[in-house]
Amino acid sequence: MRVLILGANGMIGAKLAASLAAQGRVAGRAITALNLVDLTAPTAPEGGPTSTCRAADITAEGTAETLIADRPDVIFHLAAMGSGAAEQDFEGGYRVNVDASRALFEAIRTAHQADGYTPRLVFASSLAVFGAPLPDPVPDSQIRTPQSSYGTQKAIVELLLDDYTRRGFFDGIGLRLPTIVIRPGAPNAAASGFFSGILREPLAGLPSTLPVSRDVKHWLASPRAAVGTMTMPGLATSVGGQIDALERVAGKAASARITEAPDPAIAAIINTWPKAFDPARALALGFTAETSVDELIAVYLEDDAPKDAQSWDAQS
Amino acid sequence: MRVLILGANGMIGAKLAASLAAQGRVAGRAITALNLVDLTAPTAPEGGPTSTCRAADITAEGTAETLIADRPDVIFHLAAMGSGAAEQDFEGGYRVNVDASRALFEAIRTAHQADGYTPRLVFASSLAVFGAPLPDPVPDSQIRTPQSSYGTQKAIVELLLDDYTRRGFFDGIGLRLPTIVIRPGAPNAAASGFFSGILREPLAGLPSTLPVSRDVKHWLASPRAAVGTMTMPGLATSVGGQIDALERVAGKAASARITEAPDPAIAAIINTWPKAFDPARALALGFTAETSVDELIAVYLEDDAPKDAQSWDAQS
Repeated sequence: MRVLILGANGMIGAKLAASLAAQGRVAGRAITALNLVDLTAPTAPEGGPTSTCRAADITAEGTAETLIADRPDVIFHLAAMGSGAAEQDFEGGYRVNVDASRALFEAIRTAHQADGYTPRLVFASSLAVFGAPLPDPVPDSQIRTPQSSYGTQKAIVELLLDDYTRRGFFDGIGLRLPTIVIRPGAPNAAASGFFSGILREPLAGLPSTLPVSRDVKHWLASPRAAVGTMTMPGLATSVGGQIDALERVAGKAASARITEAPDPAIAAIINTWPKAFDPARALALGFTAETSVDELIAVYLEDDAPKDAQSWDAQS
Repeated sequence: MRVLILGANGMIGAKLAASLAAQGRVAGRAITALNLVDLTAPTAPEGGPTSTCRAADITAEGTAETLIADRPDVIFHLAAMGSGAAEQDFEGGYRVNVDASRALFEAIRTAHQADGYTPRLVFASSLAVFGAPLPDPVPDSQIRTPQSSYGTQKAIVELLLDDYTRRGFFDGIGLRLPTIVIRPGAPNAAASGFFSGILREPLAGLPSTLPVSRDVKHWLASPRAAVGTMTMPGLATSVGGQIDALERVAGKAASARITEAPDPAIAAIINTWPKAFDPARALALGFTAETSVDELIAVYLEDDAPKDAQSWDAQS
């Protein structure tokens, strides 16, 4: 199996590449080549099958044809301009998130019509395809009403993915990933950043700020679950529930590092997001996720937390 | 008010042009220019404001910029490749139904950013954005799961319409028209053609074939309702209900002209279509539709039926 990952430098892309290299298999078959692509050349994961690492701009004319020249059997299309950037840069967002995806789909269709090429295509979509007003939980049948250009772009590609699949040009699946908690690394400026921050920073002995009320609910999964099974299901929890779990794992010293500082601007954004899902179709397909925040924290400590900065066991 | 109608040769476009010419007003203000565009130059409706009639290919580079050069205040975008043609011609369907719409939206956005131009844009969408499995009735919150390339293309433009409107580039509204009954003119080959045929042909003293069972339910409105208010609501009825109404209006001689000849291929298509809607948002906005098939027939006889071929009153 030849595997192509577009957007291999992202958090999910890098973890997916490492996971596939370690397993050496995908969909029950041996991986013979693992091709990693991003705007700057990715680093090959250690061990595993032969990897090539290429820098490529998927918005450039002809790039898609080049990427599928060796007919990868499985393509993970994770490349995207993020939600904040796509809202700032209207034209750029459509160019990267819609036009480049369609160019990829068109290159595959042309190859399909030439030689019957029909790869498996996994597309990373987003909960941003949904927007208020929303029922709680959100059913699979909920209309996509994105409140951002990013969400609109993801919803458009979901529709294209379905139509190209129905036509038989490729075998596509779109997965809307839950908000990933606990993201490794430094705090970022995203409106959703605090969902990871209120767990990650206190675990490292650092202070953290909570910009919304403890009642705020959201849909979470660990990066491991997102990579291991490309999970759509997630875990519905409130921010207060996250903090309670932090305290169970790391003691009151950890939860005391969180400063509650309500920010009306962030609350307004968060309030339009879905809070929980009823992912009946994904569950029927065998997708799973964590069932408690305690598990999310355990996954983080095992997979991602800096080993020299786990101060919680000493302090609690 | 300068009004532009794209697709002015279609059934809805022509009726809309005639209606606007007759009223001389739109949205409560006088129409100063009525510009009609289609692939072949439309015919100007009688009377009313100054009309220009132009042939234009909206898929051609630069056409959109030309069409909005005089900054129309209201644009009715009804131009499309139909569902059968878009399924046959994959590339053509995306070119006409997606790319040309986006080119129009982009031309407006560019003008908006240059001089603040912000027209009202009315986009004709379709029930084809929905597909089985569907609840009955279908709520406004139902996910769009098109089962055709045409439906996918309409769903994509609905999303673009929402994003460009949210950004303030224009003031857009997308309307999913019910199946229009009774369509004037000759029978056509569309899978939905019989919904009109089983009323229109018997009213003209002609035989008609019913390719599905009488239990089949569908969502209907007259062409008058579709033009008069760009109605989204419709009337849920079964085929048997249509035939009963025909018999009430035109007697048993008319209903006897229908031959029941079940066609499994047509039944399979029809079964994936929505049967009824709960159009709460449209009703709240004041949109209305007929409440009985008898009314649909009365509208047809008044507006569209050939006056020399109404044989029902003589024969029943």
